[in-house]
Formats: sequence, structure tokens, C-alpha cells
Amino acid sequence: MSKIFIDACFGKKTPYTPVWMMRQAGRYLPEYMKVREEAGDFLSLCHDPKRACEVTLQPVDILGVDAAILFSDILVVPNEMGMELDFVKGEGPVFAKPIRDEKALDGLLGGKEAARKLEYVYETIRLIKERLPDDKALIGFTGSPWTLATYMVEGQGSKSYSIVKKEVYANPEFMHKLLAKVTEVLKYYLEMQIEAGAEVVQIFDSWASALEKSKYFEFSWNYMKEIASYIKSKYPHIPIIMFPKGIAIYLDEIDGDFDVFGVDWSTPMAVAKKHLGDRYVLQGNMEPCRLYSKEATKECVTSIANTMKEGRHIFNLGHGILPDVPVENAKYFVKLCQEVSKRD
Amino acid sequence: MSKIFIDACFGKKTPYTPVWMMRQAGRYLPEYMKVREEAGDFLSLCHDPKRACEVTLQPVDILGVDAAILFSDILVVPNEMGMELDFVKGEGPVFAKPIRDEKALDGLLGGKEAARKLEYVYETIRLIKERLPDDKALIGFTGSPWTLATYMVEGQGSKSYSIVKKEVYANPEFMHKLLAKVTEVLKYYLEMQIEAGAEVVQIFDSWASALEKSKYFEFSWNYMKEIASYIKSKYPHIPIIMFPKGIAIYLDEIDGDFDVFGVDWSTPMAVAKKHLGDRYVLQGNMEPCRLYSKEATKECVTSIANTMKEGRHIFNLGHGILPDVPVENAKYFVKLCQEVSKRD
Repeated sequence: MSKIFIDACFGKKTPYTPVWMMRQAGRYLPEYMKVREEAGDFLSLCHDPKRACEVTLQPVDILGVDAAILFSDILVVPNEMGMELDFVKGEGPVFAKPIRDEKALDGLLGGKEAARKLEYVYETIRLIKERLPDDKALIGFTGSPWTLATYMVEGQGSKSYSIVKKEVYANPEFMHKLLAKVTEVLKYYLEMQIEAGAEVVQIFDSWASALEKSKYFEFSWNYMKEIASYIKSKYPHIPIIMFPKGIAIYLDEIDGDFDVFGVDWSTPMAVAKKHLGDRYVLQGNMEPCRLYSKEATKECVTSIANTMKEGRHIFNLGHGILPDVPVENAKYFVKLCQEVSKRD
Repeated sequence: MSKIFIDACFGKKTPYTPVWMMRQAGRYLPEYMKVREEAGDFLSLCHDPKRACEVTLQPVDILGVDAAILFSDILVVPNEMGMELDFVKGEGPVFAKPIRDEKALDGLLGGKEAARKLEYVYETIRLIKERLPDDKALIGFTGSPWTLATYMVEGQGSKSYSIVKKEVYANPEFMHKLLAKVTEVLKYYLEMQIEAGAEVVQIFDSWASALEKSKYFEFSWNYMKEIASYIKSKYPHIPIIMFPKGIAIYLDEIDGDFDVFGVDWSTPMAVAKKHLGDRYVLQGNMEPCRLYSKEATKECVTSIANTMKEGRHIFNLGHGILPDVPVENAKYFVKLCQEVSKRD
């Protein structure tokens, strides 16, 4: 059976433009909160294939999105490479022992050995595929090497990223060694997700905007491209979505072997279309805070639909949905995207 | 006596391109830390004209920058409008009672009455002017209405700005009322700074990038422009610097009655030059983390000097200097900017 989401990723004509939302399996859903409480905490939920499967499927059932995205966290990778991970209330994820020298880096698991430790992710994918309706697609994902490296070096989220950027400018060889090691793990990680049943993969570069342009391509985009080329050469039928957040002004130099470019909300869709629309399908990009208002949602969806009326588009938010958004408004968004984009 | 910094703000030819650094009176200087400890805490230092004057002058003496910038904090304004302000260790500034409805907003002081309460700022300026060398300029400043409003509504710094942006989308009339009230105070605040002796003023829009393009112009830039027009009409000889951070992709719509556009580090200088270089003098924009390495500093200063070799430029960082930068590297940066830009 042909899936509208997969077709759209390859730029084929579809009856309407498919839609999903980043972080759609999340705290705004009471059903999610219930399962998460049962699991104990966030990381336990990531480690629990049955419950992770359940929350992955919730937005498909409740909202009618066209694709499910694996429920997991980007930081399970450094965690399984050997870094102890805690989610501290009010502070977010914390690695107690950040990686700041070659010795610490050499102590981490790499390659297939690290990727194999993420078996609970692959098991989650297999469970999801048993239950996901035939017309919906399953998206696997990973964080980008750079985004993972920021957490690995900083130890936690940061405003200035000054610890990891000090390495970028003062110790670039170390950073490249770290990024190369993470990149190798991520190639196998995505490959094993695909072997388990992921039908699309997205690479999230959440902290792309922490780097100035020249350093962005050197320390982040090139590694993302390397992963994309590896996956594309082995699995040409699997669409790849790249989502580097907050780099609208760098789009003139974006290239690589992938299918869909995820546009964040700070990048006007017309700008993305101008630079990338001929080469890539575009995904996005409603500002997530618009979901607080149906009127603001409608204004934006209509405008995006108009800009992308020739297709080659997947609707999404321009960043993750926020925890206090009314479910009713999320439903309204999904339905509206599917309706305004109907074509013969 | 003609001041090189003022001349450069008006695009006049100068013997070299002047330089200063955002947050140059700051924690990377041991001399600053000493005075701050004497004062007790950060807010006490802002309230103490003698000590605030002292730390304002330190980078002029120690680094040889071409302009001093008033030592203060953007949040003293909402503080004097009536919002209790604390600087909580590890969390930054916190307003215990954020403004989230019209009643709370109506309870705040406005206009000249609020601006007059900032007398300690004007006294600081008068003290600085007594001691500042004749060839150096004094920059006064304020936060933008939007940036102040984000703190006033959120109550503290935020990653998502979802509380204030909920108001933007779901309750825009309230936001405009708040922004208009803050704008009025800021007009008088800058005016009183100028009357006290400020020779240049900069408006910092630190959270500009929290807004998507259409909302940015409606909720932030238009209010900044209103302040600039007010000041320009009364004090045409006072240069105005606008610094909206992180909106490189919005530059095609920037206009207004000001003199210098502050370019943040994420905006390639060539992009800023293309959009704004004919109309405005450009200030900036070295990525502050480059100060961790002299080599990375030199590469960037040389590149900016080359892009801006026809002048109409003021050297600066593209954001504030970080607390753990070696003073030696900051000195190197200042000297290098002045040397590479020497002209006959």
C-alpha cells in the first residue's frame, strides 16, 4: 500500500499534504502523561519498548497525523556510549561527567558496539510496526553529531555553549575526533532503526544555531551529510529528513544527499523555498506558539499552504509542540493542514 | 575635540576603525570582580553610582577601547516601574510577580515618573563624564521594549518564551498596551541619559530572535523605531545604535531613523553589508567564543576588516564578552582591530 507520507517525502503528487508534529508524542496529551507516570520517569519510558510504543501511537490515533515518530530521546546515544545520564527536574538532561579530553573520549564505546546497546529502541520500533495502521509511516530519528556533542562536552543544556565552542576554536582536532566517533555510532544507529522497521529517518540538529556559518558547515553539517550519504547508499528507498534549527541565513550553502529539509519557524517558508525548494521537499514550519490560538493557527496554515501550493511539502510545526497547548488546538491544526491542501 | 567613535557612528572617515566590546565592563576583569564584591551584589553595583562609574571606566583604561558603555542592567527599568527584581544565583534575574494582565500592568509606574526614578543611572553618567578621557565616547543604553516585556511577562529568562508568546498570539492587545507603556518610559529614560551626558545610545534587543518575522516587526522593531525617531528628532547629534540579536534573515525589511546597526555574530558581515551597508554604519561582529583563541581572533578580525575595508564600520563582538575569557586575549582583540584598520 502506498503511504502518502513516504510519497510526499519523495516529492510525488499526493491527495493532500501530509502532516505530523515534532514532539507530537508529548506532555500536552493527558494519555501520554498517564503512561509516563506509569513508567516512572522520562528515561524509564525511553527504555520501556511497550510503553514507548504506546505513546508513539497516541498522536496517530488521537490527532490523525500522517506519520508516527519513534518515542525516544536523542541523548540515549551518548548514554549508551557510556555517559551516565540524569534528567534533573527543572534543569533537563545532565551528564555528570562531561567529555572534555581525549582520555575521556577514548573511554566511550563506539561504532556498532554502542549502536547495538540501543536494542530497546529497535524493539520499540518493531512493536510500533505491528500496530501502526498500514497507511501511516514510522519516522526514526537521531540527534546530529554536533547537537549530541554539545551535550557531551557541556554536560547539560547551555545558553552560551561557551565550553563546547571553546573546544571548537581552541582545540578543533579534539572536537573533530569526538564528532567522528559520534558520527560512526549514528550511522549504525539509523541503520539498525531501519532494519527494525523505521521507514523514514530524521536528523535533528537542535543546536545548529550555536555555530557561526563557517564553523557550522565544518563542525555540524558535514557530519550530518556523511550520515545521510551512508544511509542513502544502503537504503535509497528510505527518505531522509534533515532539520537544522535556526540557520535561515546559511541556507544558500546547504546541499547533500537527502530528501526533505525541515524548516524551523524562524525561517520564512518563502526563503526556504527560494534556496532549497527545487532540490528538496520542504517540511514545516508553523511557529509552535501559534497553537495557543486557533485564529493564529489558521492564518499561518493558510499562508504556508499558499506558499507551497505546488506541493513538495510536508506540514509540521517549526519546532516541538509545547506542553500546555490545548489538545483541541492540535487537532484543529492537523485537520486544517489536511483540508486546505486537498487536491484533485 | 572630535571623537573618533562619534565620527565613525556618523560614517565619517577616521584614522582607524574604533572598537568596543559588549559587556566590556564585566566578570572577565579581576578589577571588576573586586568592585562588584565590594558592592555586595550585581543589583547593588547598578545602584551605586561611584562603583558603577569605576567599572565603566576600567575597560577604557585596561584595554584601550574607544568608547565606554554605562555600567547598568536593562532590567532596572521594569524594576523602577514597580517590579520587584532579584538576581538568583544560577538562575539569573527573576521578577517574582510577572505582569500578565491589565490590572497588574496598570499598577506599574509609567512615563517620566518611572524614568525619573532611575536617577542613580543619570548620576553614574555624570560621574563617568567627569573622568572619561576627552577622546573617548560614552554610550548610554536601554533594552528594547520587547526584550524588557519578555522578562516582565515571563518573570525570568526562558528557552521557549511560551508565556509571552502566548500573549502575542492569543492576546495581542494586551501585549501592545504593555509595549506602548514600556516604550514611553524608555523614550524619557534615554533622553535623561543624554541630558546627563551620554553621547551615543544603544538599544539592545537581546530576545529579538524569539519572534517570527511578521511578529518581530509588529511587536519589537516598530517600538524600537519609535524610540529612535523620538530621540533623533530632539538630539540629531547623538548617534543611535540598534542591536537586534539573531535576526539575520529579517534584515531585508530593516529601516528607521538611526545611525548604526549592531550586527550579531550569527549574521555574516557580508550579508549585513549587502542589506544595510549603504544606509547604516555597521557595528560588530566577532563571535565572542573566538576570544578563547588568539589565532581564531586574528582570522576573524582580518576577515571583517577586509569585508569592511571602505569603512562605515565599528569593531565589536557579535554578543557580550564571556566571563572566562583571558584579559590578555581581550587586549589582543582591541589592539588588533585598531591596527588592521589604520588608514592614511
